[in-house]
Amino acid sequence: MAEKRVYFFGSGKAEGNATMKELLGGKGANLAEMTSLGIPVPPGFTIATKVCAEYYRSGAKWPSGLAAEIDKNIAKLEKSMKAKLSDPKNPLLVSVRSGAAVSMPGMMDTVLNLGLNDEVIEGIIAKTKNARFAYDIYRRFIDMFGDVVMGCHHEYFEAVLDAAKKKAKVQLDSDLSAEQLKDVVEKYKVVYKKHVGKLFPQDGKAQLTLAINAVIKSWMIDRAIKYRKLNNITGLLGTAVNVQAMVFGNMGEDCGTGVCFTRNPSNGKKEFYGEYLINAQGEDVVAGIRTPLPLKKLQKQMPVIYTQLTRLMTRLEKHYKDMQDMEFTIQERKLYILQTRTGKRTAEAAIRIAVDMVAERLIPKKEAVMRVTPEQLDRLLHPHFDPKAKRNVITKGLPASPGAAVGQVVFDADTAEAWKKKGKKVILTRIETSPEDIGGMDAAIGILTARGGMTSHAAVVARGMGKCCIAGVSDLHIHYKAKKMNVGKLTIKEGDWISLDGTSGEVMKGTLGTVEPKMSGSFERFMRICDSARRLGVRTNADTPEDAKRAREFGAEGIGLCRTEHMFFEGDRIWAIRSLILAADDYDKMLAELDEASSDKEKKAIVKEHSVAKKQFEGALKTLLPYQRSDFEGIFKAMAGLPVTVRLLDPPLHEFLPHEKENQAEMAKRLKVSPADVKRKVSQLHEFNPMLGHRGCRLAVTYPSIYRMQARAIIEAALNVKKSGVKVLAEIMIPLVGAVEELKIVKDQIVDEINIVFKERKQKIEYMIGTMVEVPRAALTADEIAKEAQFFSFGTNDLTQMTMGFSRDDAGKFLGEYVNSGIYAVDPFQALDQTGVGKLVEMGIKLGRKARKGLKIGICGEHGGEPSSIDFCHRVGMNYVSCSPFRVPIARLSAAQAAVVNK
Amino acid sequence: MAEKRVYFFGSGKAEGNATMKELLGGKGANLAEMTSLGIPVPPGFTIATKVCAEYYRSGAKWPSGLAAEIDKNIAKLEKSMKAKLSDPKNPLLVSVRSGAAVSMPGMMDTVLNLGLNDEVIEGIIAKTKNARFAYDIYRRFIDMFGDVVMGCHHEYFEAVLDAAKKKAKVQLDSDLSAEQLKDVVEKYKVVYKKHVGKLFPQDGKAQLTLAINAVIKSWMIDRAIKYRKLNNITGLLGTAVNVQAMVFGNMGEDCGTGVCFTRNPSNGKKEFYGEYLINAQGEDVVAGIRTPLPLKKLQKQMPVIYTQLTRLMTRLEKHYKDMQDMEFTIQERKLYILQTRTGKRTAEAAIRIAVDMVAERLIPKKEAVMRVTPEQLDRLLHPHFDPKAKRNVITKGLPASPGAAVGQVVFDADTAEAWKKKGKKVILTRIETSPEDIGGMDAAIGILTARGGMTSHAAVVARGMGKCCIAGVSDLHIHYKAKKMNVGKLTIKEGDWISLDGTSGEVMKGTLGTVEPKMSGSFERFMRICDSARRLGVRTNADTPEDAKRAREFGAEGIGLCRTEHMFFEGDRIWAIRSLILAADDYDKMLAELDEASSDKEKKAIVKEHSVAKKQFEGALKTLLPYQRSDFEGIFKAMAGLPVTVRLLDPPLHEFLPHEKENQAEMAKRLKVSPADVKRKVSQLHEFNPMLGHRGCRLAVTYPSIYRMQARAIIEAALNVKKSGVKVLAEIMIPLVGAVEELKIVKDQIVDEINIVFKERKQKIEYMIGTMVEVPRAALTADEIAKEAQFFSFGTNDLTQMTMGFSRDDAGKFLGEYVNSGIYAVDPFQALDQTGVGKLVEMGIKLGRKARKGLKIGICGEHGGEPSSIDFCHRVGMNYVSCSPFRVPIARLSAAQAAVVNK
Repeated sequence: MAEKRVYFFGSGKAEGNATMKELLGGKGANLAEMTSLGIPVPPGFTIATKVCAEYYRSGAKWPSGLAAEIDKNIAKLEKSMKAKLSDPKNPLLVSVRSGAAVSMPGMMDTVLNLGLNDEVIEGIIAKTKNARFAYDIYRRFIDMFGDVVMGCHHEYFEAVLDAAKKKAKVQLDSDLSAEQLKDVVEKYKVVYKKHVGKLFPQDGKAQLTLAINAVIKSWMIDRAIKYRKLNNITGLLGTAVNVQAMVFGNMGEDCGTGVCFTRNPSNGKKEFYGEYLINAQGEDVVAGIRTPLPLKKLQKQMPVIYTQLTRLMTRLEKHYKDMQDMEFTIQERKLYILQTRTGKRTAEAAIRIAVDMVAERLIPKKEAVMRVTPEQLDRLLHPHFDPKAKRNVITKGLPASPGAAVGQVVFDADTAEAWKKKGKKVILTRIETSPEDIGGMDAAIGILTARGGMTSHAAVVARGMGKCCIAGVSDLHIHYKAKKMNVGKLTIKEGDWISLDGTSGEVMKGTLGTVEPKMSGSFERFMRICDSARRLGVRTNADTPEDAKRAREFGAEGIGLCRTEHMFFEGDRIWAIRSLILAADDYDKMLAELDEASSDKEKKAIVKEHSVAKKQFEGALKTLLPYQRSDFEGIFKAMAGLPVTVRLLDPPLHEFLPHEKENQAEMAKRLKVSPADVKRKVSQLHEFNPMLGHRGCRLAVTYPSIYRMQARAIIEAALNVKKSGVKVLAEIMIPLVGAVEELKIVKDQIVDEINIVFKERKQKIEYMIGTMVEVPRAALTADEIAKEAQFFSFGTNDLTQMTMGFSRDDAGKFLGEYVNSGIYAVDPFQALDQTGVGKLVEMGIKLGRKARKGLKIGICGEHGGEPSSIDFCHRVGMNYVSCSPFRVPIARLSAAQAAVVNK
Repeated sequence: MAEKRVYFFGSGKAEGNATMKELLGGKGANLAEMTSLGIPVPPGFTIATKVCAEYYRSGAKWPSGLAAEIDKNIAKLEKSMKAKLSDPKNPLLVSVRSGAAVSMPGMMDTVLNLGLNDEVIEGIIAKTKNARFAYDIYRRFIDMFGDVVMGCHHEYFEAVLDAAKKKAKVQLDSDLSAEQLKDVVEKYKVVYKKHVGKLFPQDGKAQLTLAINAVIKSWMIDRAIKYRKLNNITGLLGTAVNVQAMVFGNMGEDCGTGVCFTRNPSNGKKEFYGEYLINAQGEDVVAGIRTPLPLKKLQKQMPVIYTQLTRLMTRLEKHYKDMQDMEFTIQERKLYILQTRTGKRTAEAAIRIAVDMVAERLIPKKEAVMRVTPEQLDRLLHPHFDPKAKRNVITKGLPASPGAAVGQVVFDADTAEAWKKKGKKVILTRIETSPEDIGGMDAAIGILTARGGMTSHAAVVARGMGKCCIAGVSDLHIHYKAKKMNVGKLTIKEGDWISLDGTSGEVMKGTLGTVEPKMSGSFERFMRICDSARRLGVRTNADTPEDAKRAREFGAEGIGLCRTEHMFFEGDRIWAIRSLILAADDYDKMLAELDEASSDKEKKAIVKEHSVAKKQFEGALKTLLPYQRSDFEGIFKAMAGLPVTVRLLDPPLHEFLPHEKENQAEMAKRLKVSPADVKRKVSQLHEFNPMLGHRGCRLAVTYPSIYRMQARAIIEAALNVKKSGVKVLAEIMIPLVGAVEELKIVKDQIVDEINIVFKERKQKIEYMIGTMVEVPRAALTADEIAKEAQFFSFGTNDLTQMTMGFSRDDAGKFLGEYVNSGIYAVDPFQALDQTGVGKLVEMGIKLGRKARKGLKIGICGEHGGEPSSIDFCHRVGMNYVSCSPFRVPIARLSAAQAAVVNK
């Protein structure tokens, strides 16, 4: 038997079914499935996708046997329709449509009304008594066939039609009479002859052959190739070709056409939803020339059809177990379903439908979890612009933190705070932000920077605050002194209004209307469904009690990363830390000398010699201790009963020093040293590559007292909070560890300090000490490191920087080009580079658990809130992910999807 | 039978031998070995090292059975010596010495003349008729026993002796009469009683027991523990205790003592060498009070003894197959050998002895290779200071490049060049150096920097030039404007003379005499022996024909790293590259637009729009091309027939721009742009972490034309040189690759350009394209990358930086503390971190060779010239190492040693 390439459907029977999408395309498989279900579908046949592949392989030829097989199916179709191709008395008209396994809406070609010719038209007129209808479909067919199949531009036909309308002095196509349309048809044929070089083909079979080839060819047209590339669609054989009997909704008042949804696609409510037009073709519903009627009206207009339709809707939704988007046509009071597919829906609707379908026992929870995309959820959590508002886009940057912000431009943090107090909405605009800008960022409604990438300071902090941010707008030239910025020739001054779209990265001049996010009741229910499906824990990155509370409301099960450096910038604290930095070297020298000293006398002399530094350093620590303690108390209370991972001081000390001359002078005055001293310290602490510099636990190796103070603050806070009856689970995390000996030295200091606190307080509390794995060497030697670490947290921001050799603050200059040219599929600071960095993560987990069974492992880099990275974390067996508060729901969903997909 | 713990040697028989060092210590094993060989060694016994371990384990107790075993051996010794412990008539005197498996010179305790007491002394006087000798050895014994065994400070005894000398009005101990010494002995016993609280023990057995314990205890005294820690001596059981019959060289004119070497330890000549004193004890030879006589004299003075001694020397050298350093004593015309050990020697001697012994067929080549340390070779290759010269050390930095330099301080490169032209010797002193300083560095005789580590720019370049350099002198405060520097309160001005010891890192005020390196004829022969033993190839890092030639003279088998960026700084070139940088963005934009353009007309318009940038960019490339081509021609010629790996442009572009205002103004003037334009470009190219920034092949992804120009220059040069009949093996190396797609894109551009050259020239030449593996991700995905790379070269400088998260320019601030505290055993920029970075290197090699069988793999980081790293490279199966020219001989030796050790 010859190889089967064509699949028939009709009269309640079909050779294909819904599972055969790969071979029949989505449309073909669904038409077959519906036919088998007894749904009234116009009959037809599907030429399999493999034919498309064979066609290209063999140099644009049909495989042998195909022609005969098509002929056989035409015969079958003619029999089923009781009509014949090119038979004027009883003509069969067909549509020829593309349909690949994955939907590529509008990308490939379609030919309708195929089978018409000069004789058939006469037959149709005789049969329908409707000459206007007949000439109308004929002229449409010539236009479509000429354009799609023969490459004769639609505009040539359009010109003829326009001339006819002008001549007839009418506005609409539908106002042309049968006679006038007949004239148009004649003129169309002339146009066709002129541009194609041949007469318009009168033979239906010949028309069909050409149309099938045209559909197959449309698989390889530019826009289709681009679409597949953009949407990462690979591995398909090609498009199928669906040849289906035409039905007409425009043959009279007992005809009609419409689209319907089994549920409301905009809010998800369970109700029949849709619209239709009487005496119209499908394209008229979409075109908007006539206003379609709501589906409800059909109940009065054609009650029988309405009942039939709603029954079919219910049946199809039950069958496909998802909300369906259907096309139907009524031809002479007979209902046909032309297409059914899973309906697109808003984020709100997606959640409600998923939740409802679980309640209706239509789908299991696992399936519900897959029905909402993380992107939908994200959109739901942030304000966005009114989609109808006109956008005056002046430039574009990186969409660093989603949302929409409208405000007045300010160029420094102080002004931002001052204006905020006056009730103004401000957009803080900086070349780049630094920790000194925190107050201003908090006061701003949106943040805009000229430099820095998706994980620059601005981006990370903004996402943490759930605040809209656009970063790295490279053609923005900011002039701080003049309080203005230029984008090309456009100048924007302080106080001017701009709008930021943090989701697209677009910067707009003026004010745009925003829509605030709405959280429906279904949201909570959906999140609980996700929670029941996932294995990964979801924690949050939060540095303040406020963030911690918000994250907990979003469902965070603990804090995975509490950064302590932000705590050093507020109010008096910055002066204490600056004072400490000035004294640190001398103080450290004193400690070293004391270590070497052999007699008490000698020790006294040493202490005396360094008394100024000692007073200054220890005084600063004493100032900081109560602040830190109360910070931790607030966070422990907010997270009662949940684990809190506190990362000890991480940034290089120079980040705490002022870099501008006047600020240095202020510091000198306040700390009673000379400006030269301040300048010298700043220059002494200057680093060529601060990312790889003197920071993290390296600070503790050289200045142990800082971590000791922090450890004391954490444990004292834990004891205080515990006293009030609240359960505290403190996890102390040491950053930037590269070697086990380093971890051990630092850990021993911390444990020693904690034991001192326990002794002083005559009370103990459980705690853990673990480490960040963010230096490649830590992952490579994780078996050693796990001997000293009670938990690992992968800091994949830094791990990515070091493994790939990118500075996230600088990579913006070339990373775009890297992603564009396909070197990296996505920005590795957004989605974890699983091939490279992921390999290290896997090694780290394997080695770590080899040395310490059941080692608790999480991720606290920005990737902890990104779906594909969360999927990776699930697969490699992490215990939890940690992300910014606003990403927590997305992480819960992604973790659930990972659990479903990977089982 | 009880466990054996004591090993006897004497009368030509011994229970131990030379292989039992672990159990008997080095000294004990050698005494046993010599005894068995029939060498006249005073008999004795060795208490095994395990006793020491048992002693500490059991809380300072002897293991049971030890006392009886010692008694048995004393009896044996008494029999052998025909004398008895504490027998006044025929007293046995013994020495009690420590001796671990590894030599720890002077670290542990020794007691001599044990067995003396008030009665024995009388017997000795009666026997020797030499009361002075008898009281002299007695007072020495009481002093030593009191001090070493009982903790009664030597100074108490010394005070008595000084008083006696004062009273007798004599200068030297030896001027004291027997009577006076007798009086000293009595007073010593009083001192002993006073401080120890007991009478001086008269029983020889009791003395021995205490002395044995004292020696065992000395294993754990502070200085011994520190010594082991410093020298990384671990895994030893403890010290053995050697109890040996005393012989005396100070009993009269027929007695004597001396040391001798079987070859000249200073130049390696094969001759008997040594010195001796008649009527003296060993310590007198060392003390320098009397001037010892050269060994030759003994031939006349005691011809029989001389002949006997030289025979023994020959015999022992033959037996041990190495130059021996022996101690001998002549007692009443009888020769005793007290010790033999491998003799220390100068670098020159080490080489000559190794080469000679191979020629004498005494040792195989493999053994000869192990006889010279890389450090010795290094010393031989650089000038050094006269060791006798007085050093006025003012500060210390990192010994960044070995050698000695004396010159006048200058603070900028221009002055260095100008003064050099006037014939002055200058030391270029900078806060840090940058590529702009190359000319000045070349002109200077030594380089001194206040910042930067062992692999800072200054250090790397200086080592490449074989030039003395001290880097990272943190207490150096340089004031460029005032042309002076401060070290503490000391001010050094331009023109002042200083001396640098690049081997120790010491900076000295004033001029110190230097000794130039001398290369003996043996050097070449030794190197050839090394070459025959090694498997690893040795290449060099060389950027100029001069360096290439020098390296070839040192034995380099090719260039493993030819950096092309240095070529951009000379003369006009810097202006071309600066001009190119100014135009690059606009030019790049033009290329992108041309790519999108669909018509020729459109293309013309685009070119016209960007015509200024185009002219500037392409003009700069055209200026650079001939320079580069002639650079490569010179290098290819110098390396005729050997492979040359050329690394394409690596540093970020901002390194080529001036950072100081006046230089920027000069650039603006010269390139006819505004100073603001220059400033803007500098600020636009500024990077937070340039190490991880826009450099290496990332430049080629954004500005393809630069690598194209370089590829063209390489291939045109290769074709030109080939034409002159010289064989060229060009290997083009792409730096900073992190992903295979990146490599592919860049490689395709290069191959395309090369094919254009081939077409133009109608001629082809073989070449290779490979990559540096220096980004961790490249090692992690080496299987992918090897598909596109014909060779790998591990750039372990950057690989270390990224894997460990250290910036080599900044790590100086804390790395010292890291090494001190034992977190890292050595500076990972000096010796490859085998545990962490090495793991990545191994992965990279394995994965790379899995994908491409027989992939050629080398190393071109600084580690390529460091012995322990070379050993690693051998073990992981690299093909070659590449290092700076002056390290080539060291690499050849280290590679040979690696081959010997790892087989």
